[in-house]
Amino acid sequence: MPGDALLLLTHGSVRVTRMSVSGRERVMGDIYAPGIVGETAVLEGGERSATVRALEDVTALMLYRDHFDQILRRHPRVLWNLARLLARRVTLLNDELIALGQNTETALAHVLSSLYTQRVGAGLAQPQILPLNTQDIMNRISASRETVARVMRRLEQQKLVRTVGGTIHLLDPQRLDRLALESGDLD
Amino acid sequence: MPGDALLLLTHGSVRVTRMSVSGRERVMGDIYAPGIVGETAVLEGGERSATVRALEDVTALMLYRDHFDQILRRHPRVLWNLARLLARRVTLLNDELIALGQNTETALAHVLSSLYTQRVGAGLAQPQILPLNTQDIMNRISASRETVARVMRRLEQQKLVRTVGGTIHLLDPQRLDRLALESGDLD
Repeated sequence: MPGDALLLLTHGSVRVTRMSVSGRERVMGDIYAPGIVGETAVLEGGERSATVRALEDVTALMLYRDHFDQILRRHPRVLWNLARLLARRVTLLNDELIALGQNTETALAHVLSSLYTQRVGAGLAQPQILPLNTQDIMNRISASRETVARVMRRLEQQKLVRTVGGTIHLLDPQRLDRLALESGDLD
Repeated sequence: MPGDALLLLTHGSVRVTRMSVSGRERVMGDIYAPGIVGETAVLEGGERSATVRALEDVTALMLYRDHFDQILRRHPRVLWNLARLLARRVTLLNDELIALGQNTETALAHVLSSLYTQRVGAGLAQPQILPLNTQDIMNRISASRETVARVMRRLEQQKLVRTVGGTIHLLDPQRLDRLALESGDLD
């Protein structure tokens, strides 16, 4: 995907990842249709820093910067909505920083809970079945395999989640969300 | 500060913090003049979630949402710049998430380095002298006092920083920035 274009996702979902200098992959988040991918690089005019991988069959429109600029100039409402979307992302990223700064259980609860909210918002048929395996979670919260296994066990014992072959089923999304807001000791 | 207004910071600097549910404070970042404070809540129309504290004498203009809307409608260029500023924040927050997901030394190096970059950008006379004490750092990277002390000692031994009465002097900002990009094992 060229650095001077963005994608308008009309169907399906993608996963956004970034590599650290040492080559460790970190999952930044998933984007569901209808959604927009790559708008920060286009707005900033900077280099593209993320990798985008389709999680299923997707349909998307590619929009080059020049055309995007024209649309925004002709339809200020689009620019408004874009600014609002970016403001929302800033808020969500701040929430994630807060959650990650607490213990791993809170961090994981936050990640699962916000993915669920996103899937409900996207109108998916089974929003409570998250396409995440252990490696995905490790890459999402930067934790070791052992830590992820330990924390997942704790969530399972509390009857909050159940892992079923590469997916995580949320059994009580509301209680999980409350856990994501709670604070605990650093671990 | 009312939830339907934003501040245009024309002189000085402020620190933005948020409380977790349990009452632990987390420093989200500092903003230097010329800067804007509270634009996400105004754009999202949501509740204000952060606390803003002046770090020194500040001059700021308060702009209510209605007036802000009028300005943005009359001057689309302002909306453009705002969208670009938000895109920049999204990128910086993603960088911070990456750094915090690595070890504490990388996280701290990232925080110090980005604060320095911000101070250089704001044209401050002594950008390398950061107004941070141990408690500030604990609140910024959500680490315990012992961890912060240990990592600061390591940075001092590498002649990267020196703590001088409630401030941190950066001795080699470029080398510190390289450290912030490096990855290490989780600790």
